[in-house]
Amino acid sequence: MACDCRLHLVLRISLLSFCLAGSSEAQDPLPSWNEGATKDALLDFVGCAAKDGCSKYIPPAERVAVFDNDGTLWAEKPIYFQLLFAIDRVRQLAADHPEWQEQQPFKAAIEGDQKTLAASGLEGILKLVMATHAGMTTDEFAATVRSWLKEAKHPRFGRPYSELTYQPMLELLKYLRANGFKTYIVSGGGIDFLRVFAEEIYGIPPEQVVGSSIKTKFEVRDNKPTVVRLPELDFIDDKEGKPVAIDRFIGRRPVAAFGNSDGDLQMLQWTAAGDGPRLCMIIHHTDAKREWAYDRDSHVGQLTRALDEAKHQGWFVVDMKSDWNSVFAFERP
Amino acid sequence: MACDCRLHLVLRISLLSFCLAGSSEAQDPLPSWNEGATKDALLDFVGCAAKDGCSKYIPPAERVAVFDNDGTLWAEKPIYFQLLFAIDRVRQLAADHPEWQEQQPFKAAIEGDQKTLAASGLEGILKLVMATHAGMTTDEFAATVRSWLKEAKHPRFGRPYSELTYQPMLELLKYLRANGFKTYIVSGGGIDFLRVFAEEIYGIPPEQVVGSSIKTKFEVRDNKPTVVRLPELDFIDDKEGKPVAIDRFIGRRPVAAFGNSDGDLQMLQWTAAGDGPRLCMIIHHTDAKREWAYDRDSHVGQLTRALDEAKHQGWFVVDMKSDWNSVFAFERP
Repeated sequence: MACDCRLHLVLRISLLSFCLAGSSEAQDPLPSWNEGATKDALLDFVGCAAKDGCSKYIPPAERVAVFDNDGTLWAEKPIYFQLLFAIDRVRQLAADHPEWQEQQPFKAAIEGDQKTLAASGLEGILKLVMATHAGMTTDEFAATVRSWLKEAKHPRFGRPYSELTYQPMLELLKYLRANGFKTYIVSGGGIDFLRVFAEEIYGIPPEQVVGSSIKTKFEVRDNKPTVVRLPELDFIDDKEGKPVAIDRFIGRRPVAAFGNSDGDLQMLQWTAAGDGPRLCMIIHHTDAKREWAYDRDSHVGQLTRALDEAKHQGWFVVDMKSDWNSVFAFERP
Repeated sequence: MACDCRLHLVLRISLLSFCLAGSSEAQDPLPSWNEGATKDALLDFVGCAAKDGCSKYIPPAERVAVFDNDGTLWAEKPIYFQLLFAIDRVRQLAADHPEWQEQQPFKAAIEGDQKTLAASGLEGILKLVMATHAGMTTDEFAATVRSWLKEAKHPRFGRPYSELTYQPMLELLKYLRANGFKTYIVSGGGIDFLRVFAEEIYGIPPEQVVGSSIKTKFEVRDNKPTVVRLPELDFIDDKEGKPVAIDRFIGRRPVAAFGNSDGDLQMLQWTAAGDGPRLCMIIHHTDAKREWAYDRDSHVGQLTRALDEAKHQGWFVVDMKSDWNSVFAFERP
């Protein structure tokens, strides 16, 4: 490569910040969070982590923050959105599967029979997932999810699922990244389902999404190398699986973890047990009006052990109703 | 968070590059690569990928380059260094395992009986690996590898294994990163073995290391959450496993891939089959004097199918002897 032999002299004047007395609101990185102990804890932890010389400074490479997805970054009611995708997909594919008219849980999915569907349990759900998430190439699956996200509407809010993300959490993700944190999703949901939209709606690239998976295999189809999805479970990224997956995918212990259910307990424990500054936070669904109120008795996103442990360990518990002045972006004035 | 209310005016003068006629060597990002078609291909691909408007420009998020490790980034003779670690470890642990004096392949490992060791095959190797890589926490395992790397010396060169890295490849990794590429290791070697040193010797952080793995589990030991290594294979990141692991860990198809053996063939195929600019390269060990010369008949790093495919597909084949003016940093003047 020949040298261009030019003298590059670049003069850059950066007006980094210019603020006048009284304009502090304009600078608030977390405008959807009400003033209070929770917001103070976030501002203190993140601000100090990124400030050299601060007592709770964290070297850039160690600034890893992990987030559960369902119920932490977006809603999870009436049931996990990925399951709603599977049900919609069963209906789309039903014409090619006349046998489903008589087979459970497919019959229930086609008829919208929620009760039978719920009664089919984990085994039933897995049948739906395997029938709708396997048998195609990874590219084909991603295309299916992408087109579903464009069309499908949430049953209560009548809006695309991508709008059911929590505005305060989107602000927090941005704030963390602006301070040199790498933000990861560590979800019980399917890794390949999440990766289709995580970058667009959360700003989290595919390589920072960890989730449950089915097995895949490499196959040359019509002279074209492909990766094909198999109808066999590979890994469940929930409960004890979360620290295992964090260790496998990230290879570092996070310094901050955010969850909302007992499925996140071990991830929070694993994060909290590291040396140095740590932030562990649980999103508590307390707002039946703007979202939902549920914890100990909920079938989706049950929160019992992790809520007790939060009290015991001094983890922060976000009270959705009082800590968030807006839940979804669409409800903001 | 109150506003500081100061006027920050930062004046930054960056002298980006300053070069005089005839000083092109000072600018060469790949000084250990001899001038020729291979070096030209690298400079052209990387330079153009990062230059907006260039016909082979690649958006930053897509700049993913994957590297095999053994035989591609560091040497792999007389046998894989991780196996030498396992053998050294068996000797260290032998006092606590009197039964090994009579059990193969442990007896052979203790006595340095390479022939019996080789004859024990994959099954024998797995026994050694399970006995030395499992049963402890992830932190304990990392500490063992770290201390081995500090002490152990390569049998031919009498130097630490970390010095057996290829200088031209270290330059290439840096050059790629300087142009916005994310560099990943995708190795048949153990992911947790590699992560101990990949950041220090290659500048590749743990979250960008993909490799073979054994199973692990989350366990609270003495009130302390740990991840414990189990004596059970989880995933072999070799051959067809490489594209599968790339898809699972990275979730994007690489635009550049570098390997040296048939174990890398499918990774190269998967990379080459994507749309847009691609670079696939095979390191051919042709220098018996400075390193080793081997390909089709070698037990370690056999190169047959991938060499044929390289010719067929027009992938670049690095001739170590003629393309590299130095192999290891320690041999440089």
